[in-house]
Amino acid sequence: MYEGVVQDLIDELGRLPGVGPKGAQRIAFHLLQADPADVRRLADVLLEVKAKVKFCSICFNVSQDDQCRICRDPRRDPSVLCVVEEYKDVVAIERTREFRGRYHVLGGAISPIDGVGPEQLRIRELMVRLADGTITEVILATDPNLEGEATATYLTRMLKPLELRVTRLASGLPVGGDLEYADEVTLGRAFAGRRSADD
Amino acid sequence: MYEGVVQDLIDELGRLPGVGPKGAQRIAFHLLQADPADVRRLADVLLEVKAKVKFCSICFNVSQDDQCRICRDPRRDPSVLCVVEEYKDVVAIERTREFRGRYHVLGGAISPIDGVGPEQLRIRELMVRLADGTITEVILATDPNLEGEATATYLTRMLKPLELRVTRLASGLPVGGDLEYADEVTLGRAFAGRRSADD
Repeated sequence: MYEGVVQDLIDELGRLPGVGPKGAQRIAFHLLQADPADVRRLADVLLEVKAKVKFCSICFNVSQDDQCRICRDPRRDPSVLCVVEEYKDVVAIERTREFRGRYHVLGGAISPIDGVGPEQLRIRELMVRLADGTITEVILATDPNLEGEATATYLTRMLKPLELRVTRLASGLPVGGDLEYADEVTLGRAFAGRRSADD
Repeated sequence: MYEGVVQDLIDELGRLPGVGPKGAQRIAFHLLQADPADVRRLADVLLEVKAKVKFCSICFNVSQDDQCRICRDPRRDPSVLCVVEEYKDVVAIERTREFRGRYHVLGGAISPIDGVGPEQLRIRELMVRLADGTITEVILATDPNLEGEATATYLTRMLKPLELRVTRLASGLPVGGDLEYADEVTLGRAFAGRRSADD
């Protein structure tokens, strides 16, 4: 056993995702020898992030204000809504600069095995946003895995009566990948979703 | 880019050893959604560890007081000194319950490639401790790698004039390992260090 407070630090670090007992030990010893100013900066930013970061009251994106940057931006197209699972998906899509509409962050995907059903996601809030008719297209950008597909299927069924355009991100070969290394499902989808070559 | 303070957190986490950019992102998102009390506890223990943890003035082990638990313990044999590279080596040896003497933590090993020479280690302090003749055996327990061996060789030469018993930890097959998987150097040392079977 380590000296009390060192063991406490190792225990706390070991609770972080992706940090095992050996990793926690390694980080703890690094911090023991680190410049106190560096450690203080890390502690400060931890407290700051919890104090400052809120969730946007409209789209549930991470925000430092009541409404996030994207919801406040009048240049964003209010008629197109992109539904994603998590905040990090918003960041990934923003990085492409392909999408000029707004977002709705569900806060996860339907996963019965983890006890996440539609009630745990922000689907009711999504339906409220769609009620006034401003939004005419909903892009379902959940992850292309089992949970994400289940969520998209569920939402498609929910949105059907609203007579909106509901789309799903294309599945296919990743750009820069090798055809021979693509799994069968991806390759099958790439065939099913093939487009005219002069598009 | 993430909202300012989230990016700051990712940057700070990414500086920790063994945490890459993806890992830092994953930890940051975990913390965003975590209970504020948990995050506060982590921040507190970070500050506490830097405020409370000192190094023992005798052996340079990690300690919450001026002298560490082991140096203060009168039941420890004052005549045997175990020289290790780091604090974590002390913990590893203590776990075996095989050693009842005291320690000296060098603070690393000689490694010219990292700019660590004998002057950067606590070798002068070791020589001072040995001066009064209380210590009669020095066990060199540096790591069995290039840097550790170089340090042990250097110390052996330094300690020769003092006419102490100087020993080195045994090299050989790890208990529970398979002979066929041992590397040649280890297997060679296991032969060289073979003992009478009725010990």
